[in-house]
Amino acid sequence: MSNQVRICGRSIEEFLEIVEKFHGWKAPALVIGGFMVDWAQEGIGPGVEFDSFVETTHCLPDAIQLFTPCTFGNGWMKVLDWDKFALSFYDKRTLHGVRVWLDLERTRSYPLIYNWYMRLVSKKSIDHDVLLDSIIAAGRSMLSRTPVHITQFYGKKEKGEIAICSGCGEAYPTLQGEQCLACQGNGYYGY
Amino acid sequence: MSNQVRICGRSIEEFLEIVEKFHGWKAPALVIGGFMVDWAQEGIGPGVEFDSFVETTHCLPDAIQLFTPCTFGNGWMKVLDWDKFALSFYDKRTLHGVRVWLDLERTRSYPLIYNWYMRLVSKKSIDHDVLLDSIIAAGRSMLSRTPVHITQFYGKKEKGEIAICSGCGEAYPTLQGEQCLACQGNGYYGY
Repeated sequence: MSNQVRICGRSIEEFLEIVEKFHGWKAPALVIGGFMVDWAQEGIGPGVEFDSFVETTHCLPDAIQLFTPCTFGNGWMKVLDWDKFALSFYDKRTLHGVRVWLDLERTRSYPLIYNWYMRLVSKKSIDHDVLLDSIIAAGRSMLSRTPVHITQFYGKKEKGEIAICSGCGEAYPTLQGEQCLACQGNGYYGY
Repeated sequence: MSNQVRICGRSIEEFLEIVEKFHGWKAPALVIGGFMVDWAQEGIGPGVEFDSFVETTHCLPDAIQLFTPCTFGNGWMKVLDWDKFALSFYDKRTLHGVRVWLDLERTRSYPLIYNWYMRLVSKKSIDHDVLLDSIIAAGRSMLSRTPVHITQFYGKKEKGEIAICSGCGEAYPTLQGEQCLACQGNGYYGY
């Protein structure tokens, strides 16, 4: 692995250590995500308060959470379950920003990465370390970036009125109806 | 603040520092979340591989991400947008676990916390430090815990077939239709 490469202001070694500690393993997609976050932040520029969108639930949200101030719980990262490997960072005030995505045309230059991402090879046939090395060598050259302005889904989600559910006695948002969603039969648990 | 109290194996000071670094500020709900994670982990016991559900998008997911191996991006934390202050941890193999929630009946003993959580007082009227102190003093005594078994929404989300979208040229899951959701007009951005 190249020791010169830096991602999100860290050496590769530091970066991978942070990823593994939080995410549980050095997921290749999360390393691509690091390059994406890095390039998107550069596009936004220093000192700008930004929010983010991420277009997949897989891996990529953790790159944003680890290397920007945006987390799922603080609401500055919004997740769209589209299974697209893309993210946007945008100025909270102007709604202008950048979108960065894994560019398949560019990724074709790296057959190992392309075939892995497009699920054209079995997971078992992939040497994880070799794939990681390829990703680190490819860096931004497999990505594209474009300026965007945000048109919807942005801003703080307003919390509506809450009340005590007559079913379970817990607080719930009244716009869900007479009772909370769990008491309406949508719960994921039994006793 | 009491120096004896520990949350998730940390002193209060360490805990708050970790929270602030990741989440951006010492959100009171996240401190309640720390006590919830702590008690849920105790219920699961040591050495058990567990997954988690969290029933709100606000704050609480970050407590799970910071103090357990479960993150949004690794798929071990699933978020239900129910606006209920509750979480469940469960054994990945047996689907048995515990649910912990903010118990309003118990919380009534702490009017400051109760009125803040139920949004009965204006945010501006709340002294953040006094609220934090109350939460730390209350600890588990405002929570309840019960054994549960998980009945749905669990397990790994299967990634379906992916293809290249004829609109944008990016990879997308074919089950979304002929083109990706953004190209179908659901995008959040313009150029």
